[in-house]
Amino acid sequence: MNRISLLTDFGLDDNFVGVMKAVILKINPRAQIVDLCHQVKPHDIFSAAFLLGSAAQYFPRGTVHLAVVDPGVGSKRKAIVVQTKNNFFVGPDNGVLSLALRREKILKIIEIRNPKYFLKPVSHTFHGRDIFAPVSAHLSRRAAIENFGRRLNSYKKIVLPNIKVNTRTLTGEIIYQDGFGNLISNIDKKVFRNFVKKDKFKIYIKNRVIDRVSESYSQVCPLQPLAIFDSFDFLEIAVNSGSAAKLLKTKKGATIKIVRKTAG
Amino acid sequence: MNRISLLTDFGLDDNFVGVMKAVILKINPRAQIVDLCHQVKPHDIFSAAFLLGSAAQYFPRGTVHLAVVDPGVGSKRKAIVVQTKNNFFVGPDNGVLSLALRREKILKIIEIRNPKYFLKPVSHTFHGRDIFAPVSAHLSRRAAIENFGRRLNSYKKIVLPNIKVNTRTLTGEIIYQDGFGNLISNIDKKVFRNFVKKDKFKIYIKNRVIDRVSESYSQVCPLQPLAIFDSFDFLEIAVNSGSAAKLLKTKKGATIKIVRKTAG
Amino acid sequence: MNRISLLTDFGLDDNFVGVMKAVILKINPRAQIVDLCHQVKPHDIFSAAFLLGSAAQYFPRGTVHLAVVDPGVGSKRKAIVVQTKNNFFVGPDNGVLSLALRREKILKIIEIRNPKYFLKPVSHTFHGRDIFAPVSAHLSRRAAIENFGRRLNSYKKIVLPNIKVNTRTLTGEIIYQDGFGNLISNIDKKVFRNFVKKDKFKIYIKNRVIDRVSESYSQVCPLQPLAIFDSFDFLEIAVNSGSAAKLLKTKKGATIKIVRKTAG
Repeated sequence: MNRISLLTDFGLDDNFVGVMKAVILKINPRAQIVDLCHQVKPHDIFSAAFLLGSAAQYFPRGTVHLAVVDPGVGSKRKAIVVQTKNNFFVGPDNGVLSLALRREKILKIIEIRNPKYFLKPVSHTFHGRDIFAPVSAHLSRRAAIENFGRRLNSYKKIVLPNIKVNTRTLTGEIIYQDGFGNLISNIDKKVFRNFVKKDKFKIYIKNRVIDRVSESYSQVCPLQPLAIFDSFDFLEIAVNSGSAAKLLKTKKGATIKIVRKTAG
Repeated sequence: MNRISLLTDFGLDDNFVGVMKAVILKINPRAQIVDLCHQVKPHDIFSAAFLLGSAAQYFPRGTVHLAVVDPGVGSKRKAIVVQTKNNFFVGPDNGVLSLALRREKILKIIEIRNPKYFLKPVSHTFHGRDIFAPVSAHLSRRAAIENFGRRLNSYKKIVLPNIKVNTRTLTGEIIYQDGFGNLISNIDKKVFRNFVKKDKFKIYIKNRVIDRVSESYSQVCPLQPLAIFDSFDFLEIAVNSGSAAKLLKTKKGATIKIVRKTAG
Repeated sequence: MNRISLLTDFGLDDNFVGVMKAVILKINPRAQIVDLCHQVKPHDIFSAAFLLGSAAQYFPRGTVHLAVVDPGVGSKRKAIVVQTKNNFFVGPDNGVLSLALRREKILKIIEIRNPKYFLKPVSHTFHGRDIFAPVSAHLSRRAAIENFGRRLNSYKKIVLPNIKVNTRTLTGEIIYQDGFGNLISNIDKKVFRNFVKKDKFKIYIKNRVIDRVSESYSQVCPLQPLAIFDSFDFLEIAVNSGSAAKLLKTKKGATIKIVRKTAG
């Protein structure tokens, strides 16, 4: 316990993240806070869910994962805590927790309603400070999850865009662009291998064709595009020593197709 | 003790912040350093003062607040430590501490002069590393404040721009723009309520008129402007799911007027 | 021990740095991680080496310095740990550690090869997470350096660009531009003083001439350029309350000349 991961879209130009940490440390002076990311594009719930979903498994057991990307702050959207077999997840019930929760065994979902744990007066614009930070801090001190509110049966899920498969073509989508300009698709290694098997294949993205999956960026010449399984096992389009987003002039939402030589 | 908040305009592109932390930890290995913000616009003392002033109250008692926005580094500006009833404040005496100090009961002001506590040789360009970090680290280990130098009777104050009030109009100013493009004015909730009372009113900013104060961003349609009390109780002009600064093409320094229906 | 400094070119827009910290804390829950910088320009080994080289001396003894700027990840470049009299250095063997190592007494160089210490499966694109973070975490728990692999006799060095000296002229180069737009040259205080001695001199950069070294930015008028020894004792071209890079429209790689009045 005591460990809290922190993911927000607050950026680092203001004092919002620092104030949340102050609130946490006032309640649990032993809290060990790890910044997961604060530069999620404002209100981009999907990217935040993706970043938390791919990162949570690397944290020690018992971590409280706090994600505040909350365009509905002050509206009627719920605030939730989810206890899983290994961890706790805290945030608005808008899907931001849902990709991480797919990998966890869920034990309890609680709607946060007990003002006893809030910083008062509760503002209408900064629940990160007034609700989520104090609840996470109390959780990290082993407060029982039932104390925070009433039991729920479900939470809001967002899903990765669907992959379409027909006899010879698998069609996916770029779902995330990282800071190096790498383009991450929704096609994971297992899906890819099941589709391609030992057949030859071509990967089409924008006006480019790539005919193999590389094992490292340096297997192609500098400034050439390549396909590779990224460190979280998604198929990624990258450029050796460059930016795929720039070279291909493409971005999140773009279509990526795998065509295999023979019908499966 | 042991807790130090850190606010600078050093940005995160260099090693300046990391080096300050190294110096602190060399003196006090138990120091718990919380980044308040490092992306203050270079030399923008007012914004730094605003960020520290609105954040300091959320930290645990006994925090050492270190603020290094120091365009006069190496000149004759003083360096000070201020002990208040609850906390310590360290920085150049250029006003950067003053908005936070307005909320505190001041006990002692000391001009930092004792080279015993400095990292030597003291550079002319990086007192954050050579003077402020070591002094803060020693303070966080409970060094007596008198050790650092001689007693002063006052410190440099910066003030929020004045609010002008006449019978029907209150005129304020945008004093801060946050990373979401929200425009924060110098009109706080108390001043606003005393002026408006139960009367109807209109808020004028740029070429827009807003006739109520919302309770949450989502009370107006997406991309519409609204007025709201921000999380630190200042009147803020915002845009639901957007940037007020962009939509209104306005920024820090802009005039904001409240006109009430009947003369007060 | 327990202290780890972290330098990468991963930026702060993704979860890479957070994931590395998670991996470290899973192995050593007491690790105290200090961010040195994460916004090194992607693949800019020289700048990273410069930032680590100028910062490492300020950390407490026994720090594990981890630097991951690794354009060759997944290729055959080596991964190394270097034990010096005072510290440990971990990273790819591409020169990123070498400017820091110049200041240290080297005891042992080990090529990291023992998969026992890796996070498995080891990806081809993120050795920061799978190799360097776990090795650093184990080191910070006092694992013996010999455990990680086999002894090497040398490591890859990068060098500062040469300074050319003739009877009256010393020619150097801008090697780093910091976030304030200050231009740092490869001419250090000792070299400068040995060359100039007590003679008069002129400093030429772009179309500007500067005839003295200032002691503080404020010794010249606002927006005027000046020369000053930076906080790490390199000769720096700066602008009082402004950006030298912008004013002089120049950058890394630019030539800087010192001409003294009389032949030496």
